[in-house]
Amino acid sequence: MLHAADRLAAAIDRSGSPVCVGLDPVFEKLPARVTAAHLEPVEAIREFSLGILRALVPTAGAAPLAPAVKFQSACYERYGAPGVAALESCIAAARDLGLIVVLDAKRGDIGISAEHYAAAAFSRCHADWLTVSPYLGPDTLEPYLTGTNANSSRGIFVLVRTSNPRSDAFQSQQLADGRTVAEMMADAVAALGRERLGTDGLCNVGAVVGATKASDAAALRARMPASFMLIPGYGAQGGTAADIRAMLRTARTPSRPGTAGVLVTASRSIIYAFPPDAADWTAAVTAAARSLADEIRAVVA
Amino acid sequence: MLHAADRLAAAIDRSGSPVCVGLDPVFEKLPARVTAAHLEPVEAIREFSLGILRALVPTAGAAPLAPAVKFQSACYERYGAPGVAALESCIAAARDLGLIVVLDAKRGDIGISAEHYAAAAFSRCHADWLTVSPYLGPDTLEPYLTGTNANSSRGIFVLVRTSNPRSDAFQSQQLADGRTVAEMMADAVAALGRERLGTDGLCNVGAVVGATKASDAAALRARMPASFMLIPGYGAQGGTAADIRAMLRTARTPSRPGTAGVLVTASRSIIYAFPPDAADWTAAVTAAARSLADEIRAVVA
Repeated sequence: MLHAADRLAAAIDRSGSPVCVGLDPVFEKLPARVTAAHLEPVEAIREFSLGILRALVPTAGAAPLAPAVKFQSACYERYGAPGVAALESCIAAARDLGLIVVLDAKRGDIGISAEHYAAAAFSRCHADWLTVSPYLGPDTLEPYLTGTNANSSRGIFVLVRTSNPRSDAFQSQQLADGRTVAEMMADAVAALGRERLGTDGLCNVGAVVGATKASDAAALRARMPASFMLIPGYGAQGGTAADIRAMLRTARTPSRPGTAGVLVTASRSIIYAFPPDAADWTAAVTAAARSLADEIRAVVA
Repeated sequence: MLHAADRLAAAIDRSGSPVCVGLDPVFEKLPARVTAAHLEPVEAIREFSLGILRALVPTAGAAPLAPAVKFQSACYERYGAPGVAALESCIAAARDLGLIVVLDAKRGDIGISAEHYAAAAFSRCHADWLTVSPYLGPDTLEPYLTGTNANSSRGIFVLVRTSNPRSDAFQSQQLADGRTVAEMMADAVAALGRERLGTDGLCNVGAVVGATKASDAAALRARMPASFMLIPGYGAQGGTAADIRAMLRTARTPSRPGTAGVLVTASRSIIYAFPPDAADWTAAVTAAARSLADEIRAVVA
């Protein structure tokens, strides 16, 4: 299988806009038509997720409106084993539709446990990318990139600078050497990615960098010139077009949005775009995804 | 339900030794008798786990040899939905045997996602304690301690100073204010725990502190006087009795080992204590658990 970064860049080029739709389904927020049709919440979650995926590919055979989707693992794990089964089937459906799959599980462990998490995400669920929490050290990142994963066909997004309000309390701490904790993590990401470049010059060790932390974004991009940035926080949380522009790679090819090295995620503004009692709720999702894709296309151009 | 720290302290008092047996089952290491009897690896994992649990309670109705068990979530998630179902049933069995259950899943997210992880661990799996990775900020810890969890009947162990060799690269970084990253996390743990004390003076916000990081242990204990420390790395990884002693609470009641605020975990040295072709492999596990419990009892006394 091709290098994960090359596949992601190609998918972005095909769709034309580096947008990732986040599936964070919560039962209480689902369309009435979906919840009314299912006795079990987990079945409603599954049906809703499949509806979102189909809404992102309104024209069969054409490029999806968004090149990638991000599944929030917690929303499925909430329902135990049946929830995990639903997650697995939704990921399979996403891949069948030609979407790149990011599994947002924020895993973090070492040794055989990390290898097992990698196997669960990549071999069992067939996710293309996994989000990983780095606190344990570099040895918590490497198991996803070595052994059976040494061919770089899958990738990780390491939490570096997250978009939540109080991430500052830990990630903005100043080190004695002048860097922030987030910058220290960015350097670790860059070191790991340096030898894992695809043909487009991007590596399969990406970073989560929130659009709401724009003041840090340019410095982080300078430290991680070859990494895809998975960017939450655009729009509803306050991130702007200027914030995204600060994260674009200088080494990009203007005609190829995939080489800009960004992937802007949006969840609630897309998946809940329908009016409460919408008859055709998926049409509203399609419209919202198309609108965001157009907006981000202009930002990256 | 009683405060999580009070329940853990009482269970330690009852067993007499603050030992936690880690279930990190890997198919390739299981007894031949177990693997031969099951076509599906996940079934062998489940049967082996249940055998370990029974081995920890050799006398029905008596106190378990170890007051607590720690399930490594990755080893079960590796098998997808059936693995999670196996994990759920093993946790139920552990609770039926009177064991305190730590779910070692190292979860870390924010908002509704963190609430879902809490629900998965506490409401769905019925774990008593969950390990949590803190990188995202204080808002990644609070969802496990507020809302439906505000009654403190469940607890978390926050990763503060882990036992893996390269944890130093991140956790020992010196901050400009003189603290290390781990000490900064310890202060955050203490701040959260301060208003969450049980009747024994211990809180339900614990910390993972490796026995292999003994030089840091006393300083971390001073910063977290009311926290249970979940301690990996004793024995095989190099942690010694002196290392454990540095982590005992000064405010403990000598006749009550549960008030010492430590929980020493051991996995492979216990669960794989049997010879390769052992006929009664559980007897060897019982003997190893009893031996470790005696050893740690002497350390804490």
